[in-house]
Amino acid sequence: MRQPVVLISLESPHSFWRLSSEHERALSAAFPGLKFRRATEEAVPHQLADAHVYFGWRFAPSWLFAAPHLKWIASPSAGTDHLPVAEAHSVGVALTRSYGFHGRPMAEHAMGLVLGFSRGLFTSQRVQRNRAWWKDDLAEEFFDLAGATMTIVGCGSVGRHLTQAARAFGMNVIGVRRTPPAASEGGITWVHTTAVHQAVSIADVVVNLLPATPATDRYFDHNLFSACKPRSLFLNLGRSATVDHSALLASLDTGHLRGAALDVFDPKPLPARHPLRLHPRVVLTPKSSVFCRAYMNEAVAFFADNLHRYLSGQPLNGLAEAPATRSPLVGG
Amino acid sequence: MRQPVVLISLESPHSFWRLSSEHERALSAAFPGLKFRRATEEAVPHQLADAHVYFGWRFAPSWLFAAPHLKWIASPSAGTDHLPVAEAHSVGVALTRSYGFHGRPMAEHAMGLVLGFSRGLFTSQRVQRNRAWWKDDLAEEFFDLAGATMTIVGCGSVGRHLTQAARAFGMNVIGVRRTPPAASEGGITWVHTTAVHQAVSIADVVVNLLPATPATDRYFDHNLFSACKPRSLFLNLGRSATVDHSALLASLDTGHLRGAALDVFDPKPLPARHPLRLHPRVVLTPKSSVFCRAYMNEAVAFFADNLHRYLSGQPLNGLAEAPATRSPLVGG
Repeated sequence: MRQPVVLISLESPHSFWRLSSEHERALSAAFPGLKFRRATEEAVPHQLADAHVYFGWRFAPSWLFAAPHLKWIASPSAGTDHLPVAEAHSVGVALTRSYGFHGRPMAEHAMGLVLGFSRGLFTSQRVQRNRAWWKDDLAEEFFDLAGATMTIVGCGSVGRHLTQAARAFGMNVIGVRRTPPAASEGGITWVHTTAVHQAVSIADVVVNLLPATPATDRYFDHNLFSACKPRSLFLNLGRSATVDHSALLASLDTGHLRGAALDVFDPKPLPARHPLRLHPRVVLTPKSSVFCRAYMNEAVAFFADNLHRYLSGQPLNGLAEAPATRSPLVGG
Repeated sequence: MRQPVVLISLESPHSFWRLSSEHERALSAAFPGLKFRRATEEAVPHQLADAHVYFGWRFAPSWLFAAPHLKWIASPSAGTDHLPVAEAHSVGVALTRSYGFHGRPMAEHAMGLVLGFSRGLFTSQRVQRNRAWWKDDLAEEFFDLAGATMTIVGCGSVGRHLTQAARAFGMNVIGVRRTPPAASEGGITWVHTTAVHQAVSIADVVVNLLPATPATDRYFDHNLFSACKPRSLFLNLGRSATVDHSALLASLDTGHLRGAALDVFDPKPLPARHPLRLHPRVVLTPKSSVFCRAYMNEAVAFFADNLHRYLSGQPLNGLAEAPATRSPLVGG
């Protein structure tokens, strides 16, 4: 019998998102019964004919037609909205996302953005060249994290990491989720989606970690921004489609929101003179919240664990649900 | 016998640095045997004649001549370099600083500055208006806090707070101090001042919390900056006089240092076209690292505790040492 083939396509301009030869050697050593083969993204459709497992960043829906033996598409990403979840499901191919290791860098990123606003650091950087002195402005503007409240909408694995960081600064954390745990587990006060308006109304910082699904499309709309506590801060480290950006800009312009930081937006990049680029109280980062030098080490470890499960017939971790049944409030 | 008089002068443009009527009422209620009197800064020299205790932001050396009964000058500040320590000492007046509550806001401030650099947030804010896309730049530039090393020079009460925050992000912390504790107490690897060059050579982030004393004047000089790890980050939240700013700028310009954030500088404000204002990898904050809405609550609580000690003849906390014997490496 021929060895089952695992096709890998993990290219990136950034080394931390690229499979190294060491990773490949480690996988081969750990799974001597499998044949690992690498392909550039262009070559993937031509290499899928005998592949049983695919591990890669992208998978075009049409590639399924070229993959008669494929049983499983494994992604190193946290989200699956760029992957053919419905199509794979309809032809009986499993599709998994990865989780557990995006939380650490995203918690660093989110806390940096929160502190950049709360301590007036972004204001300072903006005015240090042309204002004589701005101490009085910051004395008005700053807020203490100790005792402040952060509400995390779509509070899953990433939200739990973020909670640990926020609590280290003495913040109270409210986690909004469609399926909240019963107790205040993990130092989080859990509330159900139905109470999201109340949860944002008492938050100094709202962090959006919602995945993009039909149910979360423009979830943060005029109504939800209006429910936010006056002078609160809004962060989006989830998906751009979950936010109505006109409503966000309106809430910033009236002063209802103190500021906003967005790691995701659409189109990417934004047009040159887009108001989100120019707004003095908006900070944009280029989907860099998941940057982590150890990313591929972690992604390969997650994949290897799942590969053991696959080979021994256990259920895979991170299975993407078919769109119709997908939970909208489990953050990346 | 007349009631001993406590003269208070705690004015500020900022409410969190001002004594409120509630604070005054609470002190009067807690110490019914004392007479509390408030004075504007201008009025202090005319009100000192019968004062036993002074609690205030400033104290001019000449005021000592107008205060024949004065026994104790209490400051709500962490530092004493703006106060007449030597003069008070020479006439037998105790002078105390405050501690234990500056660490929390300063830890928030320092971690915000570190994350602003490590996650590329300051770069993002600077270029988001005029660069199409800067993801590749950030992919080069960012670093993970998890596993990185922070060296705190002048690691006292503030340094211990900062350590807790840094360790919540998985950082290793080295504390440099003239009198280091024996073991790795408080999650800190303690080293003696004599090993400061080695301590900064392995640090991704160096935080300067040194007080200003004759022994710390330009402590961070060309030699010490050269000893820093290439591409490391330098923060000064201590005192301006402890840094040779020409040496700092040189280390930034060669690229040896990744960046610098300064909460203190001299003169304050800096001249309009000072190179520290204009440097793209320098972030300046206007001595705002100690901003804290609860500041005066904490300062009054510290003072009240010390006042109990004073009245019962116990040693005061935060006594400023006479300049000649002052420890140079205990951070504010």
